[in-house]
Amino acid sequence: MIDNINQRLANLREVLRREHLAAFIFPSTDAHNSEYVPDYWKGREWISGFNGSAGTAVVTLKSAALWTDSRYFLAAEEQLKGTEYQLMKLKMPGTPSIADWLGEELADTDLTEIGIDGMVNSYSFVSGLMSDMKRHGGITVRTNFDPLREIWNDRPCIPEKQVYIQSLDYAGEDVKSKVSRVRKSLREKHADGMLVSALDDIAWVLNLRGDDVHCNPVFVAYLLISTETVTLFINKVKLSSSVVSYLEENGVSIQPYESVKEGLAKYSEYNILLDPAETNYTLSKAATCQEVIRAQSPIPLMKSVKNDTEIAGYHQAMIRDGIALVKFLMWLKPAVEAGGQTEMSLDRKLTSLRAEQPLFKDISFDTIAGYEAHGAIVHYEATPETDIPVLPKGLILIDSGAQFLDGTTDITRTIALGPVTEEQKHIYTLVLKGHIQLELAKFPDGASGTQIDALAREAMWREGFNFLHGTGHGVGAFLNVHEGPHQIRMEYMPAPLHHGMTVTDEPGLYLAGKFGVRIENTLLIKTYKTTEFGTFLEMEPLTLCPIDTAPIDVSMLLPEELKWLDEYHKYVYDKLSPYLSEDENKWLENATKPLKL
Amino acid sequence: MIDNINQRLANLREVLRREHLAAFIFPSTDAHNSEYVPDYWKGREWISGFNGSAGTAVVTLKSAALWTDSRYFLAAEEQLKGTEYQLMKLKMPGTPSIADWLGEELADTDLTEIGIDGMVNSYSFVSGLMSDMKRHGGITVRTNFDPLREIWNDRPCIPEKQVYIQSLDYAGEDVKSKVSRVRKSLREKHADGMLVSALDDIAWVLNLRGDDVHCNPVFVAYLLISTETVTLFINKVKLSSSVVSYLEENGVSIQPYESVKEGLAKYSEYNILLDPAETNYTLSKAATCQEVIRAQSPIPLMKSVKNDTEIAGYHQAMIRDGIALVKFLMWLKPAVEAGGQTEMSLDRKLTSLRAEQPLFKDISFDTIAGYEAHGAIVHYEATPETDIPVLPKGLILIDSGAQFLDGTTDITRTIALGPVTEEQKHIYTLVLKGHIQLELAKFPDGASGTQIDALAREAMWREGFNFLHGTGHGVGAFLNVHEGPHQIRMEYMPAPLHHGMTVTDEPGLYLAGKFGVRIENTLLIKTYKTTEFGTFLEMEPLTLCPIDTAPIDVSMLLPEELKWLDEYHKYVYDKLSPYLSEDENKWLENATKPLKL
Repeated sequence: MIDNINQRLANLREVLRREHLAAFIFPSTDAHNSEYVPDYWKGREWISGFNGSAGTAVVTLKSAALWTDSRYFLAAEEQLKGTEYQLMKLKMPGTPSIADWLGEELADTDLTEIGIDGMVNSYSFVSGLMSDMKRHGGITVRTNFDPLREIWNDRPCIPEKQVYIQSLDYAGEDVKSKVSRVRKSLREKHADGMLVSALDDIAWVLNLRGDDVHCNPVFVAYLLISTETVTLFINKVKLSSSVVSYLEENGVSIQPYESVKEGLAKYSEYNILLDPAETNYTLSKAATCQEVIRAQSPIPLMKSVKNDTEIAGYHQAMIRDGIALVKFLMWLKPAVEAGGQTEMSLDRKLTSLRAEQPLFKDISFDTIAGYEAHGAIVHYEATPETDIPVLPKGLILIDSGAQFLDGTTDITRTIALGPVTEEQKHIYTLVLKGHIQLELAKFPDGASGTQIDALAREAMWREGFNFLHGTGHGVGAFLNVHEGPHQIRMEYMPAPLHHGMTVTDEPGLYLAGKFGVRIENTLLIKTYKTTEFGTFLEMEPLTLCPIDTAPIDVSMLLPEELKWLDEYHKYVYDKLSPYLSEDENKWLENATKPLKL
Repeated sequence: MIDNINQRLANLREVLRREHLAAFIFPSTDAHNSEYVPDYWKGREWISGFNGSAGTAVVTLKSAALWTDSRYFLAAEEQLKGTEYQLMKLKMPGTPSIADWLGEELADTDLTEIGIDGMVNSYSFVSGLMSDMKRHGGITVRTNFDPLREIWNDRPCIPEKQVYIQSLDYAGEDVKSKVSRVRKSLREKHADGMLVSALDDIAWVLNLRGDDVHCNPVFVAYLLISTETVTLFINKVKLSSSVVSYLEENGVSIQPYESVKEGLAKYSEYNILLDPAETNYTLSKAATCQEVIRAQSPIPLMKSVKNDTEIAGYHQAMIRDGIALVKFLMWLKPAVEAGGQTEMSLDRKLTSLRAEQPLFKDISFDTIAGYEAHGAIVHYEATPETDIPVLPKGLILIDSGAQFLDGTTDITRTIALGPVTEEQKHIYTLVLKGHIQLELAKFPDGASGTQIDALAREAMWREGFNFLHGTGHGVGAFLNVHEGPHQIRMEYMPAPLHHGMTVTDEPGLYLAGKFGVRIENTLLIKTYKTTEFGTFLEMEPLTLCPIDTAPIDVSMLLPEELKWLDEYHKYVYDKLSPYLSEDENKWLENATKPLKL
């Protein structure tokens, strides 16, 4: 692999020299600004060997570096070992920005241009980069060149998988209603059209799903919505005759995927909204309409507020997910005690139990099963090289989820496989306190996730602990497991929280080289009460799975925290027990028995 | 008064018609974007009759409206009664923005220009207004005209009071060091000069104080700092010969106040930083320098981090403030029981006790003494018209502070003057819980106030209560009682919290028509500990005054909250008792006796 990377870098540099480019930047996203991308767009992974979902590789004629966030520090270190890539830890003191680093690296070169593929970088990112590079000795940025077309010989194709209809029984709102709401929102922004690039937004508007992206039921396309027309730019081989008819019935015309630029050009008399964070630079610049309105797309907020059908779907999906999880947890300890289990074998077992459930389509992301020290690698994914035996002691962190036709799930449990240390109990309980405090929170309608984030952290802050990832994200309705616009995190996220949104609650603590703890439920945000001081929200758990009580130091819990845990466990038991065998119910009864009598 | 306002509006409209202006906007600030302004700049109060510290009056040829925030809703309603002003409650559902309202009001007029005095509005505000008005039917904004010059006959002068030196014994850092730090910070922003408009920033840099603004020890001037020069633009009558020598010694040259525009013009070869939120529009546009760098002034952040001398000063000032407060509180209940006391008489008594203390210069803002229903008017200031007798029952809210030469104080206590209702106890305890939770908070160095704000609100949110003002603000070192850049509040305030900053902790709850509760200490932010997860901060109380325990519902307090209260009371007793008489100590001992034995 290291030899591969070196050869690829050599080939790249040859092309760069020919094109008089001092450097090239490879982001982690695709032409649709996706978090998870089809293989065709995994150029950053191909050129660097780093396979995390977030990271940017920058290669100059003499050096190479890769920027990623704290979730991937340990994984990236591992994967870049032996290559010439320098690891740049985002948000850590002393880490230069890409522009600053390039400024330094290119100080002694005669070349004054760097390259980036404008098709796979958002307008915001490229505009920011251009102005930053200008300040660094007037370096310019070329955006119309993709060296991967030449040097990536066995590059995969853009997927051509079949698109399918998401039944109204699960979607709960038809296409005409959704399009009409989008148009209304566009009018409020003084726009009479918009280009939708985000694949999950397209899938949501059209009630269609696909299999183009690993774990995300979306398909590669663009959607142009104007006051009169709806046009889907897509490779027609992906559409069965029934989907074609369905689109016709819904007033959606079909154009080739590659013709989106020309399609956009037809709207020269329109004010087209192009979300600068979502639309890629090349398309953004190609728009020749009367006015480009660079504003947030209205669709993520609409999509994030779930309708009653979707909410009912989550509840159903969570029961099936919970059944699979109970079967898994009941199997887990005896299996580990019997020996021969590894992180990967546990993952396979859990996935197979989920796959047995009705309406299961796929997992919603690659399972993270990290035993002891591996649990401290926030986005660890076991590979044959890293896989280790799991023993009947210590903690295993399992973060997993499923795509059911009626809902997407996302859950983390940290489980004591046998004796745990006092330190493990202490850390586990701090995380649990944070988790519970967030579930207990009431807050004003429209508060941002940033405003309530501290509630999940204060218990650990009191002791000088912290975690550097977000505390919560939206979860799609049989769509992407990470869904915006809202997030709960330390960094400012202005998107308001409202009734009907889903959000995860997943604080964690990671002691490098020792172990990691994360406890995650997916929650539903609901109206709590309206008073003279406004409307207040609360959150109710959607996830149905016991939280391991073995590693809890009960003396650290407040009475309200203990009460929440006991009530949650009763709720889990009541919801799942009708579907379980006698043995399973016995196990669940024990796993959910109250800590406080 | 109402007749006055009507006559003033009539005179204004005559001038507006002559100038072909459809409307004029009167903000609450001055040429220095001050929160509290010299009388000369109280144009908004003069034209509307509303005297709150924040509010904007807008007058068209046929209508008038005044925007203010929740602190002033009740007061403004009172003061605007009988005038033609419509009250616009900021941030309440349905309240239009100024631009939206003007768009509606001016829809049927032929005039296409409105006016605003560019000298008393920040560059950010005017730029925003201009682009908003452009969207409303292409209305333009004239900025070079001040109708008050014509119609305000008895307009006060710009104050000419004497400026005096703030001793290094209190300031702790000399002018040369401060200027050198400002220059270093300017270099980092690629600027080689800046215009300082904020009066407290000028006072801080030069270690000078003045008496130009009620309760704020600042003086009217501009300061221009370049890489080589420091120029103070000030009316020379304000400077004694010793201050002139002092300025000379510190390399500060003196120019007339009115010549700031010409002064700025001399720096045409420079890159001058003009903070768009601080610099007024007229001066901002007058700058003809090579590059105007519109960025945040570095001075507020420098000023907000107090040095050891300033911190020692606060501690000394707080002891004297605490002594006065103990004398007041000991006097209070018997005096109220004896009869004849009113809100204003209590204010006079408190101020006279503070004035007896050494180094006292002034109060730091107009005392808020609100009895029962008046306590629910967030920024209530008793006047002869509103003043009411104070009886030995219910709650009085007293928010007050002092300017001592060695520190500024700001404290709120809500006191039971006799029997209180169960509702009063419940609300009082919710506020106390919020107050204590914020004092107990630990958080990462550099967190914003927005991130920790919820800790003071969660207890009340759980019951559907909230307060709409900020939770905390910085406090000057013998400077303005409200000091930025940091704040603790629901709205996003990005300024980071750091060791050495002061901040208030002042949650409240206000039941309109019934009573109000607010409990406020001024705190010092300190380093708590540094771990592998970063540096964490904590807060320690500077304010020394018992918190009334009579209205506490002890059953609502967590053990950690009770512990904090008892420890705080012990701290107050230990700090103050050496300075008190036997009687006072007896009173204090009782007021601070632990709730938990």
